[in-house]
Amino acid sequence: MLTLYDFRPSGNGYKVRLILKHLGIPYDYVDTDILKGETRTAAFLAMNPNGKIPTLDFGDGRVLSESNAILLHFADGTAFLPGDPWEKSKVHEWLFFEQYSHEPNIASPRFWLHYLEPGQYDETELRKRQKAGRAALQIMEDYLTENAFFGPNYGVADIALYAYTHKADEGGQKLADFPAITAWFERVCAQPGHAPIEEK
Amino acid sequence: MLTLYDFRPSGNGYKVRLILKHLGIPYDYVDTDILKGETRTAAFLAMNPNGKIPTLDFGDGRVLSESNAILLHFADGTAFLPGDPWEKSKVHEWLFFEQYSHEPNIASPRFWLHYLEPGQYDETELRKRQKAGRAALQIMEDYLTENAFFGPNYGVADIALYAYTHKADEGGQKLADFPAITAWFERVCAQPGHAPIEEK
Repeated sequence: MLTLYDFRPSGNGYKVRLILKHLGIPYDYVDTDILKGETRTAAFLAMNPNGKIPTLDFGDGRVLSESNAILLHFADGTAFLPGDPWEKSKVHEWLFFEQYSHEPNIASPRFWLHYLEPGQYDETELRKRQKAGRAALQIMEDYLTENAFFGPNYGVADIALYAYTHKADEGGQKLADFPAITAWFERVCAQPGHAPIEEK
Repeated sequence: MLTLYDFRPSGNGYKVRLILKHLGIPYDYVDTDILKGETRTAAFLAMNPNGKIPTLDFGDGRVLSESNAILLHFADGTAFLPGDPWEKSKVHEWLFFEQYSHEPNIASPRFWLHYLEPGQYDETELRKRQKAGRAALQIMEDYLTENAFFGPNYGVADIALYAYTHKADEGGQKLADFPAITAWFERVCAQPGHAPIEEK
């Protein structure tokens, strides 16, 4: 049986919950409070030296972390990842865009504003990231003006980008400024097996 | 013919140069000076809306960016990416680790200290990133104490991690503190087709 170490409000964790739900794969869930240092214990670091959730224990000695690597692991050979080499490479491009240009600028401001107290984060860095986050959203908006999904159909790049984008307002973004993104939210939510981030 | 838009000192660009050299794939090279805003022109943004190098134009209307997506594109089906699903997933894990936990903390301090002037970057943010960069190097060090490469053999995760790690001292790290990493440098440099980052 799989065991997912995760923090419920995490968009990165939500990605893994979504793909496993879409594919009907059962798993045990271990609430791991990053605010209480539960990813920095010796036991956790022995499993994932990078001390981050989501971390997935396969129960046979294998452990996989990095949300987008977990998405690719389960999506390979399914409708959630294109088989065509070029289409797959474009999905990879969006997954790395998400982790480099999007997540640090959308998720970190949300975490700081929503889960920390003023003084626990740097105001200058917050504003810099919010500006970069807005640029990342604009790239998505422009793309979605001409495309329904971040791939030939709904798949792992949609899951990865939806996870934090739909909560971007909690990090100071105005999602109403991005009508193509909000229309895409509806298409994502209409997928069979979709569940909100809060769902246990 | 492929055309690589790249900035010579970039580790991300170097990754692409290395895999293409290993595979003997010819390409045209366009020096694109990020310090002069050459990735922010209308022509460049039409090709890659994220305005970043490396960007690879396939010459047939296809364009691919994100260095690690480009690595995966060319490595698929070669010795540089495992065919085994689990081994491939662990390589993906290292590639996302590189872009999220390593590159922003190793490459950005190098860029700030080496290519910008004091006052053009935030000192507090620099120190924060250097500390996180040291933690990323320690994760690599511990892994390399028991493993020769970041996969069953030399491959894309080694290329991705080598690109900035071997220049980490330019960002304020002390590579001499990491003997397993410096020993791995020698194994990487001994690969057929290896070339230094500066090589035209």
